[in-house]
Amino acid sequence: MIVRSKVKIRGYHLDMFRHVNNARYLEFLEEGRWAFFDETGVFDGFPATINFLVVNISINYRQAASLGDILEIRTRISKIGNKSGVMRQEIVMLSDGSPVADADVTFVVVDVRTRKPLNLRDDLKPLLALLAENS
Amino acid sequence: MIVRSKVKIRGYHLDMFRHVNNARYLEFLEEGRWAFFDETGVFDGFPATINFLVVNISINYRQAASLGDILEIRTRISKIGNKSGVMRQEIVMLSDGSPVADADVTFVVVDVRTRKPLNLRDDLKPLLALLAENS
Amino acid sequence: MIVRSKVKIRGYHLDMFRHVNNARYLEFLEEGRWAFFDETGVFDGFPATINFLVVNISINYRQAASLGDILEIRTRISKIGNKSGVMRQEIVMLSDGSPVADADVTFVVVDVRTRKPLNLRDDLKPLLALLAENS
Amino acid sequence: MIVRSKVKIRGYHLDMFRHVNNARYLEFLEEGRWAFFDETGVFDGFPATINFLVVNISINYRQAASLGDILEIRTRISKIGNKSGVMRQEIVMLSDGSPVADADVTFVVVDVRTRKPLNLRDDLKPLLALLAENS
Repeated sequence: MIVRSKVKIRGYHLDMFRHVNNARYLEFLEEGRWAFFDETGVFDGFPATINFLVVNISINYRQAASLGDILEIRTRISKIGNKSGVMRQEIVMLSDGSPVADADVTFVVVDVRTRKPLNLRDDLKPLLALLAENS
Repeated sequence: MIVRSKVKIRGYHLDMFRHVNNARYLEFLEEGRWAFFDETGVFDGFPATINFLVVNISINYRQAASLGDILEIRTRISKIGNKSGVMRQEIVMLSDGSPVADADVTFVVVDVRTRKPLNLRDDLKPLLALLAENS
Repeated sequence: MIVRSKVKIRGYHLDMFRHVNNARYLEFLEEGRWAFFDETGVFDGFPATINFLVVNISINYRQAASLGDILEIRTRISKIGNKSGVMRQEIVMLSDGSPVADADVTFVVVDVRTRKPLNLRDDLKPLLALLAENS
Repeated sequence: MIVRSKVKIRGYHLDMFRHVNNARYLEFLEEGRWAFFDETGVFDGFPATINFLVVNISINYRQAASLGDILEIRTRISKIGNKSGVMRQEIVMLSDGSPVADADVTFVVVDVRTRKPLNLRDDLKPLLALLAENS
């Protein structure tokens, strides 16, 4: 399943080069992940002691975005291992679909009581189900 | 007592006009207040259930700040009433002291257990003492 | 004319108290002003050398907003003088209309070539027209 | 050459988990790169039409940082190819040097007049010199 969210670029997103600042894209990615969790409900029913933790983000900047551009953030699960998973996020211009940025976000899911990572394949089957829906 | 902190303006502070964005100044003000609490220790010894809450900020923008400028944030208590107090914060160019922005930050102090504001004059005498040190 | 925009509160908007941080509200206000300019087209047709400059923001924080809350930002022109004007912006919970924050944003409009403020009543009649539409 | 800068964690850096938010680290990294450019003067003497562009950031989150922590950002050049280079940035707890985050930041340097990337090994010998100083 791919979840799409939108953001319109405003003056406060831009930096001195009149382009969206590098750091802002990480907020857009986080926005996309929250939208994904909302729409899929993948963590609904799990206790609040289960935390989604990002351990690595690798982001490519493909094209500068400017004032007034409308971006679409596309988020999906791209890999589920035993200990960690990956969300693939692509940010494109809504107008023509041209790539603005893309990122692989590697995560673990931790039980804050035990401080141990869950086994994603065994303990979080709704994530696995969402992965299957991509193909 | 006046507490001074510094910030050097970087590219990510600027917006499309190559000036520090309005919203960033509120982070600089918060930075100044944390420095004030650190340096004066005014809330040390109070329980964690005592929360400092901002109820109004009135900020004047006097002069645009640009890449490489070093700003000084000057923070002091300017008024203590029964229910609310005011912190006066001035942001100036470190080089020549010319004004960049200034703000009055009105606050209450609340006990989160009772949800009631403390009487600042009776319950927070260290704040009153800091006010007296301005003159 | 009142222009409405929406924002859904995400984890990155919150601070250590799990409430939207004070500084974020200034981004929400800026979002509201851009939406106002977009929707009314009030500055369309004016040269790019005409700059809208904020000189004061006075913001009241009425109620804490938390994860998942959907806020509505309502923006209108509330006063036009010769040299400066005021935009009134109210942020409310979309669910029940209860107030979250409100602000008066005082602005001037400057011609960057002459560095002089325009006379808003004479030179910016579209702003005056929008003010009249409030009543 | 390794350039070190410091940041003290304040309330506005934290998110709902009371840890520094993922996106904030990209501001800390940018802070470190500006400090590096300032201290080494590596781009001094180059025309303003020469732009440093980040094309990829890969960041590992190693340990959560909390209110009051003082972080040190260590920045150096780690690789210079013909078309692109890499800056290595490590963020550690100042108190004990334990790792908080580390990132490889891949960049190109572009002449905005020709829109073409410079050959880093031929055109930007000061960068090469800084790389040599690491060993």
